[in-house]
Parts: sequence; C-alpha cells; structure tokens
Amino acid sequence: MGSSETVLHEGAGAHAPDKQAIAERAAKTLWSTDRAAQALGVEILAVGPGSATLAMVVGDDMVNGHDTAHGGFIFALADTAFAYACNSHGQVTVAAHCAITFIRPGRRGGRLIAEAREISCAGRSGIYDVRISAGDEVIAEFRGHSRTIGGSFLPAAPEAK
Amino acid sequence: MGSSETVLHEGAGAHAPDKQAIAERAAKTLWSTDRAAQALGVEILAVGPGSATLAMVVGDDMVNGHDTAHGGFIFALADTAFAYACNSHGQVTVAAHCAITFIRPGRRGGRLIAEAREISCAGRSGIYDVRISAGDEVIAEFRGHSRTIGGSFLPAAPEAK
Amino acid sequence: MGSSETVLHEGAGAHAPDKQAIAERAAKTLWSTDRAAQALGVEILAVGPGSATLAMVVGDDMVNGHDTAHGGFIFALADTAFAYACNSHGQVTVAAHCAITFIRPGRRGGRLIAEAREISCAGRSGIYDVRISAGDEVIAEFRGHSRTIGGSFLPAAPEAK
Amino acid sequence: MGSSETVLHEGAGAHAPDKQAIAERAAKTLWSTDRAAQALGVEILAVGPGSATLAMVVGDDMVNGHDTAHGGFIFALADTAFAYACNSHGQVTVAAHCAITFIRPGRRGGRLIAEAREISCAGRSGIYDVRISAGDEVIAEFRGHSRTIGGSFLPAAPEAK
Repeated sequence: MGSSETVLHEGAGAHAPDKQAIAERAAKTLWSTDRAAQALGVEILAVGPGSATLAMVVGDDMVNGHDTAHGGFIFALADTAFAYACNSHGQVTVAAHCAITFIRPGRRGGRLIAEAREISCAGRSGIYDVRISAGDEVIAEFRGHSRTIGGSFLPAAPEAK
Repeated sequence: MGSSETVLHEGAGAHAPDKQAIAERAAKTLWSTDRAAQALGVEILAVGPGSATLAMVVGDDMVNGHDTAHGGFIFALADTAFAYACNSHGQVTVAAHCAITFIRPGRRGGRLIAEAREISCAGRSGIYDVRISAGDEVIAEFRGHSRTIGGSFLPAAPEAK
Repeated sequence: MGSSETVLHEGAGAHAPDKQAIAERAAKTLWSTDRAAQALGVEILAVGPGSATLAMVVGDDMVNGHDTAHGGFIFALADTAFAYACNSHGQVTVAAHCAITFIRPGRRGGRLIAEAREISCAGRSGIYDVRISAGDEVIAEFRGHSRTIGGSFLPAAPEAK
Repeated sequence: MGSSETVLHEGAGAHAPDKQAIAERAAKTLWSTDRAAQALGVEILAVGPGSATLAMVVGDDMVNGHDTAHGGFIFALADTAFAYACNSHGQVTVAAHCAITFIRPGRRGGRLIAEAREISCAGRSGIYDVRISAGDEVIAEFRGHSRTIGGSFLPAAPEAK
C-alpha cells in the first residue's frame, strides 16, 4: 500500500488501511463497467469495508402510476449500494435474495440516500442492510443476501505498491 | 359494461366479464401516468383479475459491473407486473414488502417476461408471485405483498358502454 | 430400484418410480431422527419428488398471548414440510432463508395442513413454497430457500430390492 | 407512574420512565397468557420500548433430522422476542410477515439469546430485527414486520397512579 493512500485514509478509524483501500479499488472497478448505475445517475458518496453510501435523485422517468417514486428505482438504488458493500472485500459477490419494505413514498425530484452496512459475513454468504432515506424520512428498508462466487475481481495492484 | 366489450372477453373463461373489464381499465389508467414503466420500455402483454404479464428487453443501460442485467431492473419489471396485478381490482393498492430471488443472470438484449399471479387476497392485504423468465430459463422469482389503501382509482365508466 | 418397489409406485403418475421411491426413503430416514417433528405431533400425509404434505394439530402449548396459534409453531410446521420437500431428492439440503406471511390466525385445537412444493431447483439452490391451511382457510404462506450441501443421506438400498 | 417504578428504572437512560414502565407491563401481560413461550422454556432477560432480549435452551425435543436445532424453534424464539418488542408500546400488535436467515447450526443443549430491536415504526407498521446468537456465534438473523391492529391491551393502571 502506498504511503499517499495511507495518508488519505488516516481517518478511517477502525479499518485497516488495506481493507479501506481494497474497498475503494473495488468500487472504482465496479463503477467503470456499471452502466446501469451510471445511467440512473447514482452517486457514490462513500465506501468502506462492508459498507457503501450512495445517492440518487428521483427523476421524472422514475415515477409510477401513483405519481411517486417507482419501487423499482428505489430498489435499484438500494441494490446498487448493497452490491458495492458486498463486493467491497474484492471478491466477486452477487445478490442471491433481496427484500425491501416500502415505508413512505419517495417524491419526484427528491434526493434518496442509501446506506448499506454488513450485518453478517459467514463463509460465502453475507447479509447487508440498506436504509433508504430522503432528508429525515426513512423511505424504505432493504435486506440483501449475497453469495461470493469466485476470486478477486480487482485488477493487479499498480507497480511499486 | 357494453355488449361489445362483453363479446371481446367472451373467452375469458372463469372470469366474469366485469372483472376482466375492470382489470383492463385499471391497467389502462395506471399506464397513462406510469412514466417509469414507459421509460423502461415495459410492454403489457396481458392483464386479468389478479394477474398481469409484462415484457421488457434488457437494454444497454440496464447492465451492471458483472455485465449482466442489473438486479434493480429485473426487480423493476417484476414490481411493475405486481403493481398491475394487485391494482387489477380497481382499488388503490400499493406495494408494502417485496422479496426477489435471483436464480440465473439476465443477458444484455434478452427479453424478460414477468408473469404475476395472485396467491392471496384477504382484507386489505394481498400476496402476488411473479416469475421472471427469458425463453425457457427462469431468471428470478419475486413475491410481493400489497396493501389496499383506498377507494377506486378508475375513472367513471364512459357513457353508452 | 427393485421391481417390487416399481410396482408399488406404478400409480405415481408423472414421477419416475425411482424418484418417488427416493422421496419416500428420504422422508423415512429424516423422520427417524427428527425428534422435533415427532414431539410437535407432525404427521406426514404425503411426500413426492420436491413435495410434501404434513399435518399438525394446534396444541394447548402452542398458543400465544393473543390466544391464537403462536407463529413459531405455524412456522415450525411449514419449515418441516419445506425440509421434507427439499430433501426429497436424497441429497443433504438445509434451509438458508425462509419467509412467512401470516394471513389469518390459527385456532387452538385446529388441524393445520402444510403443502410444500418445489418452485425452483437450480444448482445447489432451491425455492419451495408452503401453504398452511385449516379447512378452507389459508392461515399462512411460506417461502423457503434451500441449499444442498453434500452427498446423499440415504442409507444404502437394502439387498434384494 | 409511581415513584417506586421510576426509581427502579432510573438507569433506563434515554427512555422516559413511562415508556419503560409500559414496556414492562406489556411484557408481563403478554407473558401471563403466553403458553407457547412458557412451554418452550423461554426466559425474558430484558424489555424496553421497542426492544426485548430473550433466552432459550435448545432442548432434546428441538433437534431435527440433521441433529441440530430445528429451524422452527430458532424461529419461535426470534418470533417471541419480536412479539415482546413490537407489543412493548402497549398496543395490540401482530406479526404480519417474518423472514429468517439461518447462518450457523444451533447445538443441542446450547443457550440461544434473541435480541430484538425496532428498526422502523411508521403508522401501524413496524419493522423489528432480531439477532439470535449462541455465545459469540450468530446463529440466525430475523426481520419481522408488525401491524398494530387495535387499542391498548394493558390492564388498567394500578390505583394511585
């Protein structure tokens, strides 16, 4: 791990710099090919080992017949946060089963924040909870179950590291 | 209900023509303001009392970092089918809780079919199962829980029908 | 599989006699050590490849503070039916994730029937739905996700069969 | 609320004494008729507003065909903790939908601890998470959805209050 990165993450607290750096490289790698998240206008606010915080604005094309945020897009944001969190260890990990509870409607034009955190990681199976909120209001609670299916998807570490 | 519509749905089998007609009017009404489904390119293949069959092609902007259909879009299709099925009785009904199991990856360019059917409808609570498939392969299984929250959202029946 | 068993299951319809016989041997083997199901008074009404139908009476010690069947016992019956269905292929298979929706209360002294059927079986992962009913009323709907973890748990077939 | 109770709960921290006292009276009331929990040998370790911690030993009659704790009994403990947590506000509240993920097997004779906490409480709908552990190991994660259906189930407050 290079010294400059170590400095950058000095404030990461409980996390070893290595784990934080892996989470950031994982997010960067995923993002580079994640056309869906890019097209949705998802913004990655933070990633860490087992965690991710993302934002997305409810666009005009994301509302349903009841004129509130279509559940599919709320789910898509949560699922994306889940993906970044469960892949943050650098191993290829996929969603196996997800559940979402819709608590309050999301408004057109509102900015949704999704915070994913690791609840359990045992063997190849993980559980991640994602809270989706808009301002002070919780919009939905999501729980994702992941399955690690293979080796590292990270590119080889750059030279001199 | 006018005679012409009755004739149109003569083959609806077990369903009373009224229920089938209500399901079709409900779908039409929902669709007219469902910008999300329209933008996703969702196609409504069939609706009935408690059921709906929809299709969607996995577009280039619907793939994720593993280069397969982003779970959010598979969910969005399933959730849309669920919405049309649970609103097919003409009462304002919303999704409360949904779970999806991803079984096989969806391919870019593939055409997904979502078939929603009513499993339970007791009081204001309903359960709907949606199978998402691509050709002969099942891609995902979805179970949605709905809550009926209000009166009819159907426009008054047009005159002379 | 010996000819006598083939004859016994001649009426199994769509199922190959071998598969039906395996399901029955699997159920017998599981049951012999399933102290929980025995203590709950569970009765196995039928098993088949991917399916199982069980019954249980809501005993006096199975009611909760609202004086209806404790959800834990309704779940236990459903989970048992799920176990017999997902182990019916003779491979060691365990429950990974289960969800249950409580639709109507179960009555003290009522006889609950749980019907499990296979929804999906892909690789090592399976989905099984279980409907729990009492007479004409549906009490709960259960969906179980299984994971096959090892080889056969069936005893070697007896000689001369 | 009487002064003696206030003293007893002086250490309740962030919780108003009233809320803590209501939670304790709710637990006492539920327990008095909760034959299922009593028969299972459930022990109530703590209750608070929106929370409950319970214990149960995996008895000889709680093991399944794989000789580990039957999922139904793990669920029953979690579901009971959920019930005490979601009824802790003193309003009649029932389980609508529950999901459980089995992470590690429970051992015969092991003491399981279930800790329930409130994740969301909006209108009549609540979400409660329950972690079931044995020593340092997490055995299962449970998420319950509740529905408040009526008024208070608490007995009238004692005199002089």
